[in-house]
Amino acid sequence: MHLQSEEIRRETASSLPTAMRALTLTDGGPVLRTDYPVPTLQPGEALIRVRLAGICGTDLALLANYKGGFRGVLGHEFVGEVVAAPDDPTWVGRRVVGEINVGCGRCSWCRHGLERHCPNRQSIGILGRDGAFADYLALPLANLHPVPDDLPDQEAVFTEPLAAACEILEQIQVTPNSRVYVLGDGRLGLLVAQVLALTGCDLTVVGHHPQKLAVVAAMGIQTCCIQGDQVDSFLQPRSAHVVVEAVGSARGFALARHLVRPRGTVVLKSTFPGAPPAVDLSDLVVNEIRLVGSRCGPFPPALRHLARRTVQVAPLIHDHFPLAEGLAALERAGQRGVLKVLLSLT
Amino acid sequence: MHLQSEEIRRETASSLPTAMRALTLTDGGPVLRTDYPVPTLQPGEALIRVRLAGICGTDLALLANYKGGFRGVLGHEFVGEVVAAPDDPTWVGRRVVGEINVGCGRCSWCRHGLERHCPNRQSIGILGRDGAFADYLALPLANLHPVPDDLPDQEAVFTEPLAAACEILEQIQVTPNSRVYVLGDGRLGLLVAQVLALTGCDLTVVGHHPQKLAVVAAMGIQTCCIQGDQVDSFLQPRSAHVVVEAVGSARGFALARHLVRPRGTVVLKSTFPGAPPAVDLSDLVVNEIRLVGSRCGPFPPALRHLARRTVQVAPLIHDHFPLAEGLAALERAGQRGVLKVLLSLT
Repeated sequence: MHLQSEEIRRETASSLPTAMRALTLTDGGPVLRTDYPVPTLQPGEALIRVRLAGICGTDLALLANYKGGFRGVLGHEFVGEVVAAPDDPTWVGRRVVGEINVGCGRCSWCRHGLERHCPNRQSIGILGRDGAFADYLALPLANLHPVPDDLPDQEAVFTEPLAAACEILEQIQVTPNSRVYVLGDGRLGLLVAQVLALTGCDLTVVGHHPQKLAVVAAMGIQTCCIQGDQVDSFLQPRSAHVVVEAVGSARGFALARHLVRPRGTVVLKSTFPGAPPAVDLSDLVVNEIRLVGSRCGPFPPALRHLARRTVQVAPLIHDHFPLAEGLAALERAGQRGVLKVLLSLT
Repeated sequence: MHLQSEEIRRETASSLPTAMRALTLTDGGPVLRTDYPVPTLQPGEALIRVRLAGICGTDLALLANYKGGFRGVLGHEFVGEVVAAPDDPTWVGRRVVGEINVGCGRCSWCRHGLERHCPNRQSIGILGRDGAFADYLALPLANLHPVPDDLPDQEAVFTEPLAAACEILEQIQVTPNSRVYVLGDGRLGLLVAQVLALTGCDLTVVGHHPQKLAVVAAMGIQTCCIQGDQVDSFLQPRSAHVVVEAVGSARGFALARHLVRPRGTVVLKSTFPGAPPAVDLSDLVVNEIRLVGSRCGPFPPALRHLARRTVQVAPLIHDHFPLAEGLAALERAGQRGVLKVLLSLT
């Protein structure tokens, strides 16, 4: 059986090109290569032909702090087609999205389906493993989820960030009568807002960009545009059951603490570049505040939301580039006011 | 009706002394007075003759940082007897314990039974209101809980700190299979340990004092005595579902972060004197850790534990002083290795 799949692996590999295009992060910054080796598969892995990929804030953070960080192919939001799966050829030809963390497969985290917390994990395009801004990508079959036929690529590509938004409701309960603020009108903030709005909660999205806020305002979600440090009188201090910090800044954390009520919850949905903001732990004790760190989430509910059209992602797409213009795409994604930029590989 | 209770109030007051003994915190430090005015009652309040009071870490913290802090009668752990209750004389003669926070009675916190989070609250012996290290104490009737007849004073006096221990289980779920560490072998840590042990969880109490740890070891609870900063190999990093920080030190918080597993919970059960320890919020996001501040708790479950003898408090009593020796009692309570010191008012 093992020899047989080895044989298939060799055969499949021989029918594929050995070099491909890839947007990589190097010691000198981002470089678009045309001679990057096509991944070779390990047991249990599939080879995926990437169709469409999304640029995320994490990609931009890796670029901004590229010295001493990740090296290899960038990208972790993608939709693609399986072109080789030696251990289970029934996957070949299926359109898939893929969970980004690859665990050791042996520890208790991996055995409980929480590869994303495996202490020896890799994360595609982020940590120790090539990512999706390339013609081909290798991932374990266990990471793959088939995409429903009627879900277009440009929506399926949002599965990963939408899963991160869904993760909040795996961690805390948001009830229909909760007062909730989402801080941040970026890509993630607008997905978090849509997911939380489905609970029926009393929700306000707070941001700095009228055009971005308009995306969720058009869905009937209340928004509040603030200028600089000015805290709008509309934002009631100590009023929120839940505040989601989706900015990743000391200012965002300070506003979250200002808005959350005693016994309330602050969800930390973004990492904080540079020195972390100061946290007064005694104040957390006295007011019985809870802080909840939140990262990657489960793909199935995200795919269900997309299939049911309960979350709208099309209005978040601000631009679209072919991979050949990958460097321009990265620059565009970093511009103020820009939401999702997609990279087409086909 | 109102006039009538006013009349009773005046009559009751006239049959009581106008001055009393009180252990107070002044601009010059703690002072034992014999001429402190007996409290006058506001509508809805009862006058309580204090029988026994307990010295708590908060009292010692108030003493240590007495400049610019609380002024008035210290003490918030007590058991006493109602001697006047003009609005409901049926309380007179009952032995009671009392919740320590007094809210405004009108805000939404107070209307939901959470006076302990009322933004205008007072706390006896801590914030804006005289406490229990005195012959008499005034508290709203709504704060009082009758003590079961067969529960002796020296156990009932532990209701308040035991309620604070119970608060953890109002905030988070500790399951029978959870791995839990309690950091701190002080008064509060040993009560928290006993309450959490009742869930059946896999519990280890970590401390520096063999004699203190012996109190819970005698109840079959696993303990680990560490020396200085040395982390015992017995303490498995990233292993705990729940860590309760009951030390209130940067070292305790660092150990909690070391022991908690990804997606686990650190309960902050003590405030942190001085500058708060640094918290890496990005690390909380990546490992999806939750921090839960925890303060005062509900009295009824604490009284039930005492009545059912499911929590043992007698082994925590290390000394007993009359109020006349109150200053010596405070000094004794601050000595290394000393658990609960009681003050007798009778």
